[in-house]
Amino acid sequence: MNICEEVGKLLEKVKKENPLVHHITNYVTVNDCANIVLSLGGSPVMADHIEEATDMTSIANALVLNIGTISENSIDSMIVSGKRANRMGIPVILDPVGIGATRLRFEVINKILSDVKIAVIKGNFSEIKKLYGMNVESKGVDSLDSIEDDIEGAKNIAKELSKKLNSVIAITGKKDLITDGEKVITIDNGASIMSSVTGTGCMGTSLIGTYSAVTKDYFLSAVAGVLTMGIAGEIASSSLNKERLEGPGTFKTRLMDAIYYIDKDILNKHSKIKEL
Amino acid sequence: MNICEEVGKLLEKVKKENPLVHHITNYVTVNDCANIVLSLGGSPVMADHIEEATDMTSIANALVLNIGTISENSIDSMIVSGKRANRMGIPVILDPVGIGATRLRFEVINKILSDVKIAVIKGNFSEIKKLYGMNVESKGVDSLDSIEDDIEGAKNIAKELSKKLNSVIAITGKKDLITDGEKVITIDNGASIMSSVTGTGCMGTSLIGTYSAVTKDYFLSAVAGVLTMGIAGEIASSSLNKERLEGPGTFKTRLMDAIYYIDKDILNKHSKIKEL
Amino acid sequence: MNICEEVGKLLEKVKKENPLVHHITNYVTVNDCANIVLSLGGSPVMADHIEEATDMTSIANALVLNIGTISENSIDSMIVSGKRANRMGIPVILDPVGIGATRLRFEVINKILSDVKIAVIKGNFSEIKKLYGMNVESKGVDSLDSIEDDIEGAKNIAKELSKKLNSVIAITGKKDLITDGEKVITIDNGASIMSSVTGTGCMGTSLIGTYSAVTKDYFLSAVAGVLTMGIAGEIASSSLNKERLEGPGTFKTRLMDAIYYIDKDILNKHSKIKEL
Repeated sequence: MNICEEVGKLLEKVKKENPLVHHITNYVTVNDCANIVLSLGGSPVMADHIEEATDMTSIANALVLNIGTISENSIDSMIVSGKRANRMGIPVILDPVGIGATRLRFEVINKILSDVKIAVIKGNFSEIKKLYGMNVESKGVDSLDSIEDDIEGAKNIAKELSKKLNSVIAITGKKDLITDGEKVITIDNGASIMSSVTGTGCMGTSLIGTYSAVTKDYFLSAVAGVLTMGIAGEIASSSLNKERLEGPGTFKTRLMDAIYYIDKDILNKHSKIKEL
Repeated sequence: MNICEEVGKLLEKVKKENPLVHHITNYVTVNDCANIVLSLGGSPVMADHIEEATDMTSIANALVLNIGTISENSIDSMIVSGKRANRMGIPVILDPVGIGATRLRFEVINKILSDVKIAVIKGNFSEIKKLYGMNVESKGVDSLDSIEDDIEGAKNIAKELSKKLNSVIAITGKKDLITDGEKVITIDNGASIMSSVTGTGCMGTSLIGTYSAVTKDYFLSAVAGVLTMGIAGEIASSSLNKERLEGPGTFKTRLMDAIYYIDKDILNKHSKIKEL
Repeated sequence: MNICEEVGKLLEKVKKENPLVHHITNYVTVNDCANIVLSLGGSPVMADHIEEATDMTSIANALVLNIGTISENSIDSMIVSGKRANRMGIPVILDPVGIGATRLRFEVINKILSDVKIAVIKGNFSEIKKLYGMNVESKGVDSLDSIEDDIEGAKNIAKELSKKLNSVIAITGKKDLITDGEKVITIDNGASIMSSVTGTGCMGTSLIGTYSAVTKDYFLSAVAGVLTMGIAGEIASSSLNKERLEGPGTFKTRLMDAIYYIDKDILNKHSKIKEL
């Protein structure tokens, strides 16, 4: 069974088990994250009050941490919920949004990493480089780098970081790269208009969280989330009628639609996965 | 005049009076709540800072409380705003989102109920059962129960709870049930895809809030909100072209559209209300 | 070169330079604000934690402050970020959402104005009147006044306020008026359905912020933002098929699309600017 077929099986499992995916995330893209989890077949929940975040984690099947708009309260809730998830044996997915943009984000991510075992870390190339310890220029939450310019470099950074943190690393961008420290694959799906909609990164992380909720193979679930997002992006993008001036607004609507209809046949037909 | 005609009159009153509906609500679905109030003909406002929540309540025609993502600050603001609304004589609508999921939510709802007189409580069957004092399993903010499996039980629970709290109770799901402790009706409108979009519950509560802002008959306004949501959901769902892969993204867009165009003729044509 | 041509040039500059626009804004419309900045060609970022707000401002090209849902934390972050922006020489754009609705909002705006130099203030007529010191009735965040009823009065208020605060003043509504204290123009673009979607005001402010990030002529950038919003609203509105019941939901989607496709030819074709 190739990896794309395994993703198809995992997708069926999501739809059957309808896992509960707890998010402590940012208020910019939270609605889209909830909707994309629902479209895939999961059940999203968001609770960041310190007095309830661990209770919600206790009934969840996965925990997504996203530092897009952190507050004093949400930082603490991420730490205690992450620890609880670790004790329960459910996966924690981390999106280090804009880690290079401010000192606080860098410190928060390092605090999380020192206290919580992370199953999958997903970021753009700038974020993963910063996490790796490199000095990178930052432009808010957007990436200034693409792995296409340096695929060997990206591969080495991701593998080393994966081994060091004992986490699956997923670098997303025009081309995506995912590694568990040994296996490395790239994914060439996606569409350029995705960068004109906020939250496609966050939504991808939520998809990884949903897939991770129904397996212990977090390399597979990371591939599944990134692949699903890329293919849905392609389908939504190719449906746009530019003469009718359909742009990012229509694209976002169709992206949710595409996620809802994705199945193993669509995955097989569109998948552009390559083992490195 | 049957109840559906009364709802039609109330809708015209909303469009004429354009009531101000203050929300202290969650950050996941807040944008959709604001938009659905506008689509119906009301004017939404959201303010949860303790230093201004009561001032905003003072100029409002109804207050909607939704505990979807509570914070230390918003809990206090809900209490003081609810008390202010009671003193002013404007209705308070309560959505006990996920009351069974965490101890904090259960305590917050009980604190609100002990301090504030609520006009309408709207929840899914799991939430209403928990509120009634039953031990229910919880899956985040989603319901594990449907009243269809136990319509007599649901009726009795809702009536008793309504009498105990002196509030109209609305249970929403595949089938909806609304009671003021004496009258009981069920509504069979709606569409299954509504559960694939986050916030349809919250939006329904905001519709109830908007209708409640222009009447003192909160049984009628609860029926109006639930009926309007169900019919709009049906219209939006039936407009989806599945061959063009239109799913939850397109549905949500069309739901807002449908609310905007609903009038008394559409209500009469689609309404599936039954008195029990 | 007339002002509409200048706007066209500025738009091309936005698309070329992709400026970073930092927002401390409300959680109701934040997603739409991020998306509209992206659609125009800018790069949005939102960070309101006091420990990182100034760091984010330090790498930004403009700062947008919007008091739609203020918290204790965000008020402080607005002040320190505004001061930082002033020291850096990047523009601060202020949207005094609902300034007349609560005492807190009035005080917060006055605190911001006493500590921070503002490049552009954009509000509806009720908000600008309140800022000017008039006693106005308030209906939450909506305006009860239109400048069309009193164009001379609006002009005088805006000019005086502009001189007093040394800020460009933009009054938006059915008809818009913009002044730097000397020049005064009105804009007659827009569509009535814009008032049935939450956040069109906030989005307009974000557009002004994006344009202001690539020029020092804040009268021009204010005109550019208001004009772009009005024309996009017209295009989106005229595309609606009322027989297919397309309403505010579809409109919002098409509004994002329209912003994405606007260019200097579209601006020239639709622009209804008049010098007073």
